[in-house]
Amino acid sequence: MGNPKQKKPKAELPRGFQDLSGRRLELRSKLLETIGAIYHRHGFEALETPIIERLESLGKHLPDVDRPQGGVFAWRDDDEDWVALRYDLTAPLARYVAENRQFLPRPFRRFQTGPVFRNEKPGPGRFRQFTQFDVDSVGTASIQADAELCLILARCLKAIGFADDEFVVRVNDRRLLDALLDLVGLEDEAQRGDAMRAMDKFDRLGEEGVRALLGPGRKDESGDETPGLGLDGVHIDRVLAFLLAGMGQDVDQLLSELGQLLDGHGVGLEALEDLKLLAGLAKADSEVGHLIRIDPSVVRGLGYYTGMVFEAELTFPVRNAKGEEVVFGSVAGGGRYDGLVARFGGEAMPATGMSIGIDRLVSAIMSRQDDEQDVFDGPVVVVNFGGREDGSAMALADMLRHAGVRAESYVGDAGLKAQMKYADRRRARFVVLEGEDERAQNMVTLKDLAAGSQLAQDISSRAEWLAGQPAQREVPRDKLAELLFDLQGRQK
Amino acid sequence: MGNPKQKKPKAELPRGFQDLSGRRLELRSKLLETIGAIYHRHGFEALETPIIERLESLGKHLPDVDRPQGGVFAWRDDDEDWVALRYDLTAPLARYVAENRQFLPRPFRRFQTGPVFRNEKPGPGRFRQFTQFDVDSVGTASIQADAELCLILARCLKAIGFADDEFVVRVNDRRLLDALLDLVGLEDEAQRGDAMRAMDKFDRLGEEGVRALLGPGRKDESGDETPGLGLDGVHIDRVLAFLLAGMGQDVDQLLSELGQLLDGHGVGLEALEDLKLLAGLAKADSEVGHLIRIDPSVVRGLGYYTGMVFEAELTFPVRNAKGEEVVFGSVAGGGRYDGLVARFGGEAMPATGMSIGIDRLVSAIMSRQDDEQDVFDGPVVVVNFGGREDGSAMALADMLRHAGVRAESYVGDAGLKAQMKYADRRRARFVVLEGEDERAQNMVTLKDLAAGSQLAQDISSRAEWLAGQPAQREVPRDKLAELLFDLQGRQK
Repeated sequence: MGNPKQKKPKAELPRGFQDLSGRRLELRSKLLETIGAIYHRHGFEALETPIIERLESLGKHLPDVDRPQGGVFAWRDDDEDWVALRYDLTAPLARYVAENRQFLPRPFRRFQTGPVFRNEKPGPGRFRQFTQFDVDSVGTASIQADAELCLILARCLKAIGFADDEFVVRVNDRRLLDALLDLVGLEDEAQRGDAMRAMDKFDRLGEEGVRALLGPGRKDESGDETPGLGLDGVHIDRVLAFLLAGMGQDVDQLLSELGQLLDGHGVGLEALEDLKLLAGLAKADSEVGHLIRIDPSVVRGLGYYTGMVFEAELTFPVRNAKGEEVVFGSVAGGGRYDGLVARFGGEAMPATGMSIGIDRLVSAIMSRQDDEQDVFDGPVVVVNFGGREDGSAMALADMLRHAGVRAESYVGDAGLKAQMKYADRRRARFVVLEGEDERAQNMVTLKDLAAGSQLAQDISSRAEWLAGQPAQREVPRDKLAELLFDLQGRQK
Repeated sequence: MGNPKQKKPKAELPRGFQDLSGRRLELRSKLLETIGAIYHRHGFEALETPIIERLESLGKHLPDVDRPQGGVFAWRDDDEDWVALRYDLTAPLARYVAENRQFLPRPFRRFQTGPVFRNEKPGPGRFRQFTQFDVDSVGTASIQADAELCLILARCLKAIGFADDEFVVRVNDRRLLDALLDLVGLEDEAQRGDAMRAMDKFDRLGEEGVRALLGPGRKDESGDETPGLGLDGVHIDRVLAFLLAGMGQDVDQLLSELGQLLDGHGVGLEALEDLKLLAGLAKADSEVGHLIRIDPSVVRGLGYYTGMVFEAELTFPVRNAKGEEVVFGSVAGGGRYDGLVARFGGEAMPATGMSIGIDRLVSAIMSRQDDEQDVFDGPVVVVNFGGREDGSAMALADMLRHAGVRAESYVGDAGLKAQMKYADRRRARFVVLEGEDERAQNMVTLKDLAAGSQLAQDISSRAEWLAGQPAQREVPRDKLAELLFDLQGRQK
């Protein structure tokens, strides 16, 4: 095999992609299970659309639409049709509903998880494939559908284990922002987009930064300049008053202040009415209602939102790449996209949905756990003395598995020392040996690597430890599974 | 929104892809859970590699390597590197092991599931994205590793619910086939490939068809001609004797007959020794060992196999697209690929693994179930009388969920009739109504749509049915959850 003239391929991931294993992957499975159960219990149905869609089905809705290829991995299929990897789960849902509308109940309530792809410059913690977990109600204009999603989002974060003071779901309405931009005289679509992006940076840049972006322009730490929108002072004040209105007020005060700032703007006042309804529905929920907060500074980047927008922010501090303490930030978000299904033609299909960023959540949870854990999460390893022909280790492992113990027999021809090293690398706590003499007496030897490593760390208490917790003992073969259950239950 | 000059996109799936929902998706989740638990219990660890790999990492190992683009979806990345969607989970595993070999235990035992992609002409039941569930031991040459996989495969199929007479795991060794081709004088690689493909069609074309492909060529029903390999009669007889040796013999007879046919060929006899060991290890397993069968006609299409190959075949009959009764066929397979990791350089890494075709399995299970099922698998639907402002239906649904009942309040402004129709389309069995008067008395109305549909179907027994199983009743609000548990438990 192998042509000597051929260059060997390099074994490396493509740029911006990652392999997942171990605790990170396990944690992700648990999150998907927890969240999926909540979505399902709320009456949503599972759906799976393919990874690939026709490019025109996806539309151009990504936050930074000015990138080459619009941030999407796309190529021409055999039959000259452009196809692409989905960049989220919402655009494929809109395609699915438009394609199957006559067969679907209305509202159509579905959840879906899976990988999505962004053709962007990768960076630290910023990958080109990541996992979202979405839930949507399509075919209803009811504010109750939006309120339900905000409440579900809060329930998910609670169920995952975040405390009440560790997160908040912040809600706004795009129509409020649209009204505000009308009132400060911005008509050009590109300029309106720039203003939205400037407001979206309020969290990060603060009042001064946003003032600069709305007015003369801003120079960042590295010296890069962003040109400003050139608004005059009165208008900038109005935008800032709007953004600041959310800070620390009770909801009735906030809504009345926003009403004044909107100066009779019809669409804006409609949006305020809806927010008021949503706040009332949230308030009625005694479990998580207090975690839903109206906040006029919420923008959300995606281009398809038409009404309510919301996001969940984790508010506890973590250290960023520079070692600075920062708030963890957004892990989920969504909003109303009443025009997305109608892109394909046919009657209007108002819709609302949200997306939980599963990888971000995993990172958030892991940022709070110790990296160094002395965990024994490997299987019980049965030492294989016999080499190729001897099936006795396989039979012993099989007996353990039948009793419900996770176990494997070492597969290979290595000696005992290599097999013990293998067990160690697998983070196995227990190793079982069955020698020839032992087998004749129906006995096996059980080694406890946890006891062994404890001994090495803590020589002073060696005597007591040995007495209570032997690192090695002989056990009747037919008592082994029971003993393993006992030990794994007792110390873990 | 929407530019009138722009053509509306068509809402359609790309060719060869499918949406999954309902029972099919649910069944798939259950299969993944069952199989994943078995892999895990045998000591394997979860891994997830990305959907995209560098093209050169994947290599060219697909059965039909002569297709345009080699059957792979590939494109040039921004930085001019070729990347591709993975076509299986084995090639990415080889990349992963080569890239991380110094950190991994040896053997490295992992399982992985996810979608894989083939850029092939789609056909009925033949999709360009499908789901595999793989398990592999990398870094061991031991036959025990191969035997373990065959046994795990049989355990998986049993756990899924197939009976002993409904499937078989057939095992062969590529080296036997190589030896046979040496003995019949085929040296040219392309010709050897054609001969393998001919043997692989033994199941489908029978003795006569394979004789034609090995000799003068074959014309199929549609009149298409496949040129033959032009072997002479003696050699064709030898190949056929080899293929037929597997039929209905006990394993010792079979191995001795194969030994004679191999006429002292060294590599072939080594392979026979290994098969003998594997058969012995299988025989020692009282649970599924009898489902493992040595069969010299197993070929497997992929180009990277170097030793043992095996596949699981479902042996029960189904109807094909033409309405003919056929055996369902292969749903899983695997083998030894000792050269795949070494492609990337470094020391040899013998490996063995297998892949279960999850979508094929789902189809197999569904082919045996009734399509027409009167299933009520929707949530309890709480009718929403109040419209936008009224949170009472949400609160009632929430109470049910807290008690563990899957429930949703209708989200929307539609009237009662539309809401009942919605519940019907959701296949909800129970609908709950809470009118103004009822609320004042803490009562709700529970409608049982199963009882309702039963009534409609079976008018004669109307009286008894109504007595025992009222289609509608008044229930105290605080007894509702309990009653729902009772009813859902009692009748389903």
